Amino acid sequence: MASKPFPVLENDLLLRAARGEEVPHTPVWMMRQAGRYLPEYHTVREGHTFFETCRSPDLVTEITIQPTRRFPIDAAIIFSDILVIPQAMGLEVQMVPGRGPVLPEPLAGPADLKRLIKTDVSESLHYVFEAITQTRHALDGRVPLIGFAGAPWTLMAYMIEGGGSKSCDKARAWLFAEPGPSQKLLDDITEMVIAYLSRQIEAGAQFIQIFDSWAGVLAPEQFARYSLPTLRRIAAALRSDYPEIPLAVFARGAHYALEDLADSAFDVVSIDWTVDPVAARRIVGDRVTLQGNLDPATLFASPDVIRRAVRSMIDAFGANRYIANLGHGMLPAHRPEHAGVFVDAVHEISSTTKAA
Amino acid sequence: MASKPFPVLENDLLLRAARGEEVPHTPVWMMRQAGRYLPEYHTVREGHTFFETCRSPDLVTEITIQPTRRFPIDAAIIFSDILVIPQAMGLEVQMVPGRGPVLPEPLAGPADLKRLIKTDVSESLHYVFEAITQTRHALDGRVPLIGFAGAPWTLMAYMIEGGGSKSCDKARAWLFAEPGPSQKLLDDITEMVIAYLSRQIEAGAQFIQIFDSWAGVLAPEQFARYSLPTLRRIAAALRSDYPEIPLAVFARGAHYALEDLADSAFDVVSIDWTVDPVAARRIVGDRVTLQGNLDPATLFASPDVIRRAVRSMIDAFGANRYIANLGHGMLPAHRPEHAGVFVDAVHEISSTTKAA
Repeated sequence: MASKPFPVLENDLLLRAARGEEVPHTPVWMMRQAGRYLPEYHTVREGHTFFETCRSPDLVTEITIQPTRRFPIDAAIIFSDILVIPQAMGLEVQMVPGRGPVLPEPLAGPADLKRLIKTDVSESLHYVFEAITQTRHALDGRVPLIGFAGAPWTLMAYMIEGGGSKSCDKARAWLFAEPGPSQKLLDDITEMVIAYLSRQIEAGAQFIQIFDSWAGVLAPEQFARYSLPTLRRIAAALRSDYPEIPLAVFARGAHYALEDLADSAFDVVSIDWTVDPVAARRIVGDRVTLQGNLDPATLFASPDVIRRAVRSMIDAFGANRYIANLGHGMLPAHRPEHAGVFVDAVHEISSTTKAA
Repeated sequence: MASKPFPVLENDLLLRAARGEEVPHTPVWMMRQAGRYLPEYHTVREGHTFFETCRSPDLVTEITIQPTRRFPIDAAIIFSDILVIPQAMGLEVQMVPGRGPVLPEPLAGPADLKRLIKTDVSESLHYVFEAITQTRHALDGRVPLIGFAGAPWTLMAYMIEGGGSKSCDKARAWLFAEPGPSQKLLDDITEMVIAYLSRQIEAGAQFIQIFDSWAGVLAPEQFARYSLPTLRRIAAALRSDYPEIPLAVFARGAHYALEDLADSAFDVVSIDWTVDPVAARRIVGDRVTLQGNLDPATLFASPDVIRRAVRSMIDAFGANRYIANLGHGMLPAHRPEHAGVFVDAVHEISSTTKAA
């Protein structure tokens, strides 16, 4: 897949922090750093639907690299969407401006599982792998490239809800009313995700993050029964085949799962802005690197307030085993300059802290 | 307001459990127990919009009492909506079937605060107080009547977002970009809520619950700064004026706030289904009564699974200082029979546990 050797990586802070090695300052990136808050993103998107954009390696490369031109961030994350897996399994997914993803024909019940198809991701999602290889070359070794996928429970939730949802009531109803078919669906998605992330690594991804965006609607027992085992299977499979690639998990809202996630095969556990970093560190110790968790709304405040918030955050997480990020994605209304204030503050404050 | 004396209360288990007194079995009620999952609710609603219904004391009385006819629940909760406060402050609120509440002209920025009006709730919300008095008479002392209001932060979020929202990004942006106007808005709402709940108690409400439905989108520091002080002011005001009325708070998603809420003037802290009851009890001790927290989706399972879940729940909460409930509201797709299984299971299992 990657015939030409990749450029040598110059800034490997993200990978070192993920492995728990010493770093001169805390690495930082932002979820959704490539996206709607950047005017240059809108320029590239002009005339292309969201998923057309995802299917064009040239456009994906440009969009992925855009934030690295503006900010001294320590990673790029491939521009794509977690819903390419449901698409590859045969479901239609549209991205409706102002509303988000819509699946016009969601799974209405277990009988609909037969509508799902098993595809070879090397074919059905080839465009992602091409984009990864091309982007890694284009990054020219400046920063590592992050690949990602949605967690099986989160993808199942979208496939049943037909889009975003406040508490995924229909998908949670499946877990109780249809435990067998639910497990089957989760197993099938898990296999697809393992194949998908494996091909991403082979195509050039240097760090993998799994997004369990809807973990937080599950009771602790349901998470332990239906989500955690799939996350562990994915992590174990990748760890075994690609031991050098750091693995991160972001189970948003699953404040109760930190202990279990730290005890899985992940190197990095990402936390949302509602989790207290001091409490999180107490739970996970130095078993894993923590990642997060500034409330994205903080970037609406003045630069001074942002810098104070970054200082509190770094103090709370501690200098070691830490990757700075937001506690959720950048928002379309954010000003790019304030993202810059955030990134610079992480670098400045963490290097002072390290020196002290 | 209540010229005729109210009937003597026969079943006071809810009030006793709230105060931490011994009870022969655990009292139980369900959030949204009067609502769309009941066919008789749809019959009453026919030909009336949602808010027309809320404004008719006759219809409210009938809907409030309906679940007490079907189930041996230990409380009734007045049928209404938390958004009557924004209405009383001058904002239009519609209830759009299948979509939920919509405020067509939400607050776009601090300049819009001047659109809000201060009204005497005795006039602007007289229909709620009339409905409470009428319902309390109609209940004839069988079970206590619960009154409620939305928490200031949650009402602020609706007023800015214009409806339900996954993470209330616009309202959270206000807290960072406009801290002064945000505080002013919260203060104004807090005053309205105190007046509103005071009149509810005078009209006959015997137990008060405050719903901070959007607490969970706040970082712990933002909750501590913007929501908790308003909750404490409301609780302190009611406690001082009506010391005999138990006060409950449900800060959904605020898993980090249990300690602070237990240290406020509330008798009861309600928890959602993502909070582990054992961990919650460890934090609050016996300072407050805990209320909750069965995952509402559990009611989609078989009666046997529901009973097993109730047993685990009661074991986890413990027999004392406990009021059984769901961890969120009943859902329109629930079968009434399964709510009955839940209520019966709480009574049976808790009386056996108590006897043991």
